[in-house]
Amino acid sequence: MKGQKDATIGEYLLAKLQEYNIQHVFGIPGDYVLRFYQLLEESPIHHVGMTREDAAGYAADAYARVHGIGAACVTYCVGGLSMTNSIAGAYAEKSPVIVISGAPGMEEQRKDPLLHHKVRNFLTQKHIYDQITVAGTVLNDPVTAFDEIDRVFDAVYRQKRPGYIELPRDMVDARGRQLHQPADRETISDPDTLRSAVQEIVDLISESENPVILAGVELHRFGFQDKLVKLIEKTNIPVAATVLGKSVIREDHPLYLGIYEGAMGRDEVRQFVESSDCVIILGAFMTDMNLGIYTAKLEREQTIYITSEQVLVKYHAYEDVTFSDLLDSLLEAPLLKRESPVLDWIERSDRQVDIQADAPITVTRLFEILNGFIADDTMVIADIGDSLFGAIDLKIHQRTDFLSPAYYTSMGFAVPASIGGQLARPDKRVVVLVGDGAFQMTGMELSTSVRQGLNPIVVVINNHGYGTERHLQEGAFNDIGDWQYSQLPKVLGAGKGFVIRTEGELDDALKQAIAHTESFVILDVQLDKLDQSPALMRLAERLSKRV
Amino acid sequence: MKGQKDATIGEYLLAKLQEYNIQHVFGIPGDYVLRFYQLLEESPIHHVGMTREDAAGYAADAYARVHGIGAACVTYCVGGLSMTNSIAGAYAEKSPVIVISGAPGMEEQRKDPLLHHKVRNFLTQKHIYDQITVAGTVLNDPVTAFDEIDRVFDAVYRQKRPGYIELPRDMVDARGRQLHQPADRETISDPDTLRSAVQEIVDLISESENPVILAGVELHRFGFQDKLVKLIEKTNIPVAATVLGKSVIREDHPLYLGIYEGAMGRDEVRQFVESSDCVIILGAFMTDMNLGIYTAKLEREQTIYITSEQVLVKYHAYEDVTFSDLLDSLLEAPLLKRESPVLDWIERSDRQVDIQADAPITVTRLFEILNGFIADDTMVIADIGDSLFGAIDLKIHQRTDFLSPAYYTSMGFAVPASIGGQLARPDKRVVVLVGDGAFQMTGMELSTSVRQGLNPIVVVINNHGYGTERHLQEGAFNDIGDWQYSQLPKVLGAGKGFVIRTEGELDDALKQAIAHTESFVILDVQLDKLDQSPALMRLAERLSKRV
Repeated sequence: MKGQKDATIGEYLLAKLQEYNIQHVFGIPGDYVLRFYQLLEESPIHHVGMTREDAAGYAADAYARVHGIGAACVTYCVGGLSMTNSIAGAYAEKSPVIVISGAPGMEEQRKDPLLHHKVRNFLTQKHIYDQITVAGTVLNDPVTAFDEIDRVFDAVYRQKRPGYIELPRDMVDARGRQLHQPADRETISDPDTLRSAVQEIVDLISESENPVILAGVELHRFGFQDKLVKLIEKTNIPVAATVLGKSVIREDHPLYLGIYEGAMGRDEVRQFVESSDCVIILGAFMTDMNLGIYTAKLEREQTIYITSEQVLVKYHAYEDVTFSDLLDSLLEAPLLKRESPVLDWIERSDRQVDIQADAPITVTRLFEILNGFIADDTMVIADIGDSLFGAIDLKIHQRTDFLSPAYYTSMGFAVPASIGGQLARPDKRVVVLVGDGAFQMTGMELSTSVRQGLNPIVVVINNHGYGTERHLQEGAFNDIGDWQYSQLPKVLGAGKGFVIRTEGELDDALKQAIAHTESFVILDVQLDKLDQSPALMRLAERLSKRV
Repeated sequence: MKGQKDATIGEYLLAKLQEYNIQHVFGIPGDYVLRFYQLLEESPIHHVGMTREDAAGYAADAYARVHGIGAACVTYCVGGLSMTNSIAGAYAEKSPVIVISGAPGMEEQRKDPLLHHKVRNFLTQKHIYDQITVAGTVLNDPVTAFDEIDRVFDAVYRQKRPGYIELPRDMVDARGRQLHQPADRETISDPDTLRSAVQEIVDLISESENPVILAGVELHRFGFQDKLVKLIEKTNIPVAATVLGKSVIREDHPLYLGIYEGAMGRDEVRQFVESSDCVIILGAFMTDMNLGIYTAKLEREQTIYITSEQVLVKYHAYEDVTFSDLLDSLLEAPLLKRESPVLDWIERSDRQVDIQADAPITVTRLFEILNGFIADDTMVIADIGDSLFGAIDLKIHQRTDFLSPAYYTSMGFAVPASIGGQLARPDKRVVVLVGDGAFQMTGMELSTSVRQGLNPIVVVINNHGYGTERHLQEGAFNDIGDWQYSQLPKVLGAGKGFVIRTEGELDDALKQAIAHTESFVILDVQLDKLDQSPALMRLAERLSKRV
């Protein structure tokens, strides 16, 4: 941060955002953050005004997943506390989001008056964010402010989880100073431990008959997708992905098996992985959703588990070994190239889908037909429920072109996320898959898509209520209002809407959607209340035993 | 709770809700709360499904304000954490809302696995709610569960602030037992302290020349509106209300002065209150919004301050004296009936507004014309910004017929609140005043109004962006998308929309709105970007000095 010695706290924070290459900040202004907004507007960073703060959190999360790090900026309490859930999701799924919140000035706070937006005391919001961030600070002292900003950015960058920076409004223009050099961003492994770990892992792999790699979300977050490809091409070890890891590798790669998610996923993939005598888990978290609600059967005796938080080989752990160093060492290690595995059971050809023009559309056919429309420039963002379960089988062409809150499973992620995703990758066309229940939560954020000139294709999987729940416990509480989604262009003043009842209408609408690039397209896909994907059918059966 | 000895925890909780006369519970189901939802559906309590959890929080808050206590029921984390901001608002403004959240079963939690919806650990949501509730519990033990439920309800009822009850799904059907009798809901004052306090207060009032009462929000919350009326009619002491206290008394009462809010309010009221030699503050919190951002001038030397939390006379405090006992004692005390105060400066007659049919509509005229449409059965719910500032001068006919988040000032309160408000008082017609920015946050909750057969008249004060902020700090960040609000009936399949550009169009639309009782009516009132109410003008001038 050269040249920042005489900066104000606001200027330093903006410079730091730029140092981390954050080009878009998502949020909503409010009086306690207006001065910083003014500085933001004067900076090269783009402010993306959203309609709601929770949506700003989702957009920043998606931006971070695609771009490496993201940021949201909101006002005190009424803004910050509206974003609690989105940031909790970013914490749970390891997405590095910097949260910047305005606050009453220190001078105003001094006498502890009942200033508007205050809840219990002036630290209420900070205490709440302590629960859902890896580092947090209130910039209440110009002497320490720069170091505090460095500390939060550093923790967020290393741990790939959200951080919290609260900026009292009378501190924005206060001049700070740098006491310490910002920490070096690299952590280094203990060389002997690293050597020992690599040796054991190489031996285990070399001795194994049919090793397999299970690739997870951290390969996205740390940008290690290339390392993964090198590793499998060097060794011919095939790779499956967890749900959160989906699209960590282009899905037509000859060594890619598909999604492993226990009994929820395709049986061939499950059998392949579970019959392996050496499962190398890279950057995956063993969540219930990743594992199809704990139906996966992986033996620790045959498992090598490598993440940024832990390195476990069978029953023991190696401390002080970084994810990055271990991957690099494996790439350099004497691992033999095996014979190509026999993977002829995988459907390789994108087989032509025959459209039955007048056949009523079903969930299964919806995803089969959609699959034919996925192109190299398509980014798929799936909300939860059958949007996610069905999307698991879509073949993604490019890496990190699939986003979904697959573990935290917060409804309403997808539409706001499409804004962050496409702004981070303007060369992409985003296909949003979203249920009607989730759309009613955040779908109006299409307003922001219009303002930003984005053009998502939004597929509303309209099964008239909370479909996944109907299969667990039916009741009137699963019903929701029947919106005419295709009429939204009339309200938003842009976009194109379709009502889809047959395969022919779907095919036609998708063709028109591809051609319509100037604004959003929304497809109201009318499904039977109880229609479901095969994956949901299997999952619901298991989940319903626990309700 | 007779007959509840053999109840399950779920049954006991439902019985408790009914004991407190809660007839509507607002929320959204999710798998961790489905079993309790099933019980809820089978009970006499109505479940009101909302489109979003934050909206459920607002609706429960409004219901509590009108009905005395309210409840929301959601799923774990993705549900509960989406409601943080609404419940924080209920805490800040003293609204007694019971939050019920589902959770993973204790058996599932035992091994601390990565179950979906979990953030950091299984207590993350509880820790967050600890910051914004007066009592919280996780019902993880059938032995203590009933007592814990009693404790939370009791604290919420006494302190008029939210409480949190987390119900792990495998505890719903567990049988609990009552160890202790539920606490008596009455707190009793120390008799000697009470006598001494009353004596001093009576002396001060009796010695004063021109006493005045400043009535606040707690009179609503504790249901002491009748006591207030008795007190002023017994003594002929006139009364002003704070913003949060608005409608604590019917506003055409001959002793009612208007709203006191420092320099933001009407000058005559301010002068009257500030020239009093004895200001009796009843149940009001001295917030910056109540006091027009600290421009109010009240001398402690001449102030008696009585709330549920404190009794202050001049510079000293009386402990162990309850709000209720003190009010009752004052009603019985030998306070003389004074001569009627001279209040001829107050505009009493609802003067006829002349409609200039072709004149472009302005904020000032909008509220003047609206005033003529307020009837005995009208409940006004104002969002923040000019919706609130302008609404301050509306003359409310019945008590507790005005709701607004006037202190916490969270945008987006009004539309969801109209659902809770009207369900609590089905004899009322609700007029919602909401800015375009706030409407974009939660206005789609009209979907729930449609489902519930409610008929709010929604006046969108459309100044094309965050209007209040434009007067503090203008920038592109204050712009928002231009929705065609009047087209929403096309999306929601019900309702009636109007675009208003002139006084004549407003008058005509309001007349049609009154006649259209079967569903919502929405008026898109097109205003100039910089048009503002006189109150906002004064406020903005003061606020802008602090940005």
